Amino acid sequence: MKRLAILGSTGSIGTQALDIVRALPEHFRVVALAGGQNLGLLQQQVEEFCPVLAYSPVAEAAPALTCGGTSIASPEEMAGHPDIDLVVMAIAGSPALSPTLAALQAGKTVALASKEALVMAGDVVTKTALEHGGRLLPVDSEHSAIWQCLQGEHGHDEIDRILLTASGGAFRDHSVERLERVTPAEALHHPTWRMGKKVTVDSATLMNKGLEVIEAHWLFHLPFDRIKVIMHRESIVHSMVEFVDGSVKAQLGMPDMRMPIQYALTHPARLPNQTLPHLDLARLGTLTFGEVDMRRYPCLLLALEAARIGGTTTAVLNAADEIAVERFLGGDISFLDIQRLVTGVLGRHQPTHNPDLEAILEADRWARDQARKALM
Amino acid sequence: MKRLAILGSTGSIGTQALDIVRALPEHFRVVALAGGQNLGLLQQQVEEFCPVLAYSPVAEAAPALTCGGTSIASPEEMAGHPDIDLVVMAIAGSPALSPTLAALQAGKTVALASKEALVMAGDVVTKTALEHGGRLLPVDSEHSAIWQCLQGEHGHDEIDRILLTASGGAFRDHSVERLERVTPAEALHHPTWRMGKKVTVDSATLMNKGLEVIEAHWLFHLPFDRIKVIMHRESIVHSMVEFVDGSVKAQLGMPDMRMPIQYALTHPARLPNQTLPHLDLARLGTLTFGEVDMRRYPCLLLALEAARIGGTTTAVLNAADEIAVERFLGGDISFLDIQRLVTGVLGRHQPTHNPDLEAILEADRWARDQARKALM
Repeated sequence: MKRLAILGSTGSIGTQALDIVRALPEHFRVVALAGGQNLGLLQQQVEEFCPVLAYSPVAEAAPALTCGGTSIASPEEMAGHPDIDLVVMAIAGSPALSPTLAALQAGKTVALASKEALVMAGDVVTKTALEHGGRLLPVDSEHSAIWQCLQGEHGHDEIDRILLTASGGAFRDHSVERLERVTPAEALHHPTWRMGKKVTVDSATLMNKGLEVIEAHWLFHLPFDRIKVIMHRESIVHSMVEFVDGSVKAQLGMPDMRMPIQYALTHPARLPNQTLPHLDLARLGTLTFGEVDMRRYPCLLLALEAARIGGTTTAVLNAADEIAVERFLGGDISFLDIQRLVTGVLGRHQPTHNPDLEAILEADRWARDQARKALM
Repeated sequence: MKRLAILGSTGSIGTQALDIVRALPEHFRVVALAGGQNLGLLQQQVEEFCPVLAYSPVAEAAPALTCGGTSIASPEEMAGHPDIDLVVMAIAGSPALSPTLAALQAGKTVALASKEALVMAGDVVTKTALEHGGRLLPVDSEHSAIWQCLQGEHGHDEIDRILLTASGGAFRDHSVERLERVTPAEALHHPTWRMGKKVTVDSATLMNKGLEVIEAHWLFHLPFDRIKVIMHRESIVHSMVEFVDGSVKAQLGMPDMRMPIQYALTHPARLPNQTLPHLDLARLGTLTFGEVDMRRYPCLLLALEAARIGGTTTAVLNAADEIAVERFLGGDISFLDIQRLVTGVLGRHQPTHNPDLEAILEADRWARDQARKALM
């Protein structure tokens, strides 16, 4: 029985991780739950799973989070707690970084859904893992696919490149002119995946795919020129690995985040779970692939460029995008302003190379401030 | 450096195995070559690779097969020779059985291209391997795909089923009426693969896919109801494994037999080989999948039924089909007569269960005799 801390338990990934626990109750024990702003849902979760530790960022929440002996602890305390075997890191955005580092410093295995930790501070995070014997397991469907394809393969020099698939997001069939007028509600309607708001908007700009390239670089220790993005509208092939002998391995499945979440939770085993959807390729009939039209997706280009520059640049990219998406969802800027805003902030940034954590957090704060103030 | 015996060196698989050796000369040494009827080609191969042992079924060939100290040995002697690390078993048809058993009895690793050995005598072959520490590696592209997808996975109870892909063969777009009149030349024109004659005709009837189901059963120790055939016209996805958690792994590549041959030769490593074709999915654009229309392919049904009956029945299926295809290629019977002839022979067979090798060889002889005599 694995003992879990689920950080970000009230978000999209957190609630689906709890669905897996419900489906496989004999395999997991939820020892710690850290929720977000949805206090009501966190309370229900605490009642259902009776964790030893609970946390809410809502200051007055503590008295409501009791189920027998539940006590309050910070996400960092949970992440490093001796009674935890696996930390599910599903806190949205940059607040994921600090508890991710705390878990790795305690030598924990972290199922990482929060790609921001690696985008902001990939070098610091991977070095911390190495130094303290911590381990990162991918949860993103693309990275889970690559990880699954790499099982039993013999390292690095046998990988030619990895192919991250991209659905193209909500506006893949829109003209560029039409993009100027799209609404937040339209941007939140992903063609194949049901996900959180930020990542759904990032999927429409393909910024998400750029962040995933950066995440893949750190998770699989591959240079950027060996990570390629390929269009695949159906989101059935979750990603692929091409080996030096020309053989390609792909992982497929219905687009349902519970599947990569379960794989991270049960790895190295696979467990039957009748609540998960079954892929029927004969019925689906057709899978399509194509090159990404980079002119349609300037945010992907921005991310690849930030990745090439490195240092604090990816933290700035991440922070500026987070604020830009927030402003777009709040009706403050247009969809195409997202890329304009991020471009502007990146243009004003003086990158620091080989930054330590403090320099990264400083760049993050600077970029958020710039992104909030930017007039569009 | 692996020391190879290539049995069936002048056939389609044998010549392509030698292409791999030519591309990766520092990794392999050809110690033994057994050719078929093409004595001229075997002579060239002996001159080029200077094996320690050579063999030709052409009685007067021996004096021509010399390159320094090359001596003549039977396929069985080669297969069990102490200086051999890996036996490439690419002898067409039932003559593969005896040297396959000799290799396994000597505890060798056998890269098995000759599916007939497992179709005829799967139980005897796998038990011989187990008893003497011999090992079977798949060479067929479908089985290589499954094997690649199973690398690093934790056994059996985590496999839900395997999905063998089928292109549909040369006549996949023909009406059933049109099939009565197709010629051997038409049957030898496979839409996606370049292979030997027998397997190309078997691909047109889908008998080949039935034989592959039987081969997969023995290679991967799965019951027949967990092996499914799925149509995939492009022959890019070579086969798939569906796991109990709903995840599917697929192996893809251009349809080129050198790729699975190389994988069997280099396993567990993968080696770069610039002579192999590169898969460009974005350029290919579309992959299609569908159910097999069983009414179009009675030979597949025959094979599945023979598999279910078991015992000597699959040896009879194999022998009757071998003769039927020979008679079709000789212009003696029509394409649709292949299925009629095999059906007739199977209908007259009284199966023996748990047969020993002698009973299998007796059933094989009986079926050949019946198939040769059958009036169509």
